[in-house]
Amino acid sequence: MKLYYWPTIQGRGEFVRLALEEAGVRYVDVARLPKKEGGGVEALLALLKKPAAPVRPLAPPILVVGKLVLAQTANILHAIAPRLGLVPAAEASRIAAHQLQLTVSDLVSEVHETHHPIATGLYYEDQKPEALKRARYFAADRMPKFLGYFEAVLADNKKSKGRYAVGGKLSYVDLSLFQLLTGLAYAFPRALGRLEKKLPLLLALRERVAERPKVAAYLASERRIPFNENGVFRRYPELDA
Amino acid sequence: MKLYYWPTIQGRGEFVRLALEEAGVRYVDVARLPKKEGGGVEALLALLKKPAAPVRPLAPPILVVGKLVLAQTANILHAIAPRLGLVPAAEASRIAAHQLQLTVSDLVSEVHETHHPIATGLYYEDQKPEALKRARYFAADRMPKFLGYFEAVLADNKKSKGRYAVGGKLSYVDLSLFQLLTGLAYAFPRALGRLEKKLPLLLALRERVAERPKVAAYLASERRIPFNENGVFRRYPELDA
Repeated sequence: MKLYYWPTIQGRGEFVRLALEEAGVRYVDVARLPKKEGGGVEALLALLKKPAAPVRPLAPPILVVGKLVLAQTANILHAIAPRLGLVPAAEASRIAAHQLQLTVSDLVSEVHETHHPIATGLYYEDQKPEALKRARYFAADRMPKFLGYFEAVLADNKKSKGRYAVGGKLSYVDLSLFQLLTGLAYAFPRALGRLEKKLPLLLALRERVAERPKVAAYLASERRIPFNENGVFRRYPELDA
Repeated sequence: MKLYYWPTIQGRGEFVRLALEEAGVRYVDVARLPKKEGGGVEALLALLKKPAAPVRPLAPPILVVGKLVLAQTANILHAIAPRLGLVPAAEASRIAAHQLQLTVSDLVSEVHETHHPIATGLYYEDQKPEALKRARYFAADRMPKFLGYFEAVLADNKKSKGRYAVGGKLSYVDLSLFQLLTGLAYAFPRALGRLEKKLPLLLALRERVAERPKVAAYLASERRIPFNENGVFRRYPELDA
């Protein structure tokens, strides 16, 4: 498989990377290869400019699986999870996992909006007053709403006694929840700290995922790009008052 | 089937309504029933407060199909489209349609952000200066980017000679593109007008969908809620400079 994503950030591509890493799948992170080996941002941009099957992508992450060019994070995970063994086979479970992943995507978009409330094409510094307002609302209203929801989903799942989001064992949703919580702990440590008492199942899930051998090996490797202030999760202390 | 959505707006629920209407499926728009018949917003809110199968929903639209409680607009359409005959049966086509629908959802979210750039929980009037900035950027950068992408997708589709988004006949994606364009024509008539010359296939698609007998009957009926300033697409002339 070939992953095309921005080479210097975790971003939305990280949800795909984590699934591939946990599954032990061989993949090439194309844009991180040197340009002379067909890598670099150029390889990614070229893919956005032409027709593809089953349909051309608008934006990365893009995963090329055989002849299929897949885009949209949640769509990629939904399509590949069965062959990665990262979702139960039953159709209802696949729907549950996908529905949850789409809700993760929604929260990730709102995280992005905290530092870019006016325009993705402008710098953070050019929209800082608006970002301060939006981030305050995000921490007070949106983060508790979404995380409280995911906590309730874990509590509902009797099959795993609250240990996993869907069914009795790990799915890609758990990997995504790990990434979400890790990102929020990086970007909003104070706001997340205030919520922690209400999120015992989510916090335990985060540790459980981090300790899985393949995930742990990945996190310790150079393949894991550190969080930084170009990604979705950014540490701007003024936004985490 | 039972649809649960806010009873006074088109909103995201409209993408589901259009698919059900075009398919000629019998459905109940629950929250639009009188409270004494089990309807009203109360019925919707009650559904959000309890566990459900395959997983509890966070927000409407919600479609109850047999024992399945489905949420997330694109997920609902992806799940029901095969039985509605609104997507080709081949797996690659289903993925293509879903990927496009997720991209429609992304643009719909950005439309919502134009009048709510700071907080969903605040009134438009309380975030108007920020909305003016965001809407300007939306009209100049985001709308052309997304609509240009959908135009290219239509042009790529040789199987329908640019008449439909996926495969050789109508799919739910076409209904959603119709709704998207109709909403943008309501909310941003000037900005859309400036782009029209570059979007011949999309504009023809919009008319083609509007003329389908079941869609036309629906649009002329009382079931179609008029656009208004509580929905996603709002006509605030100051945002469409």
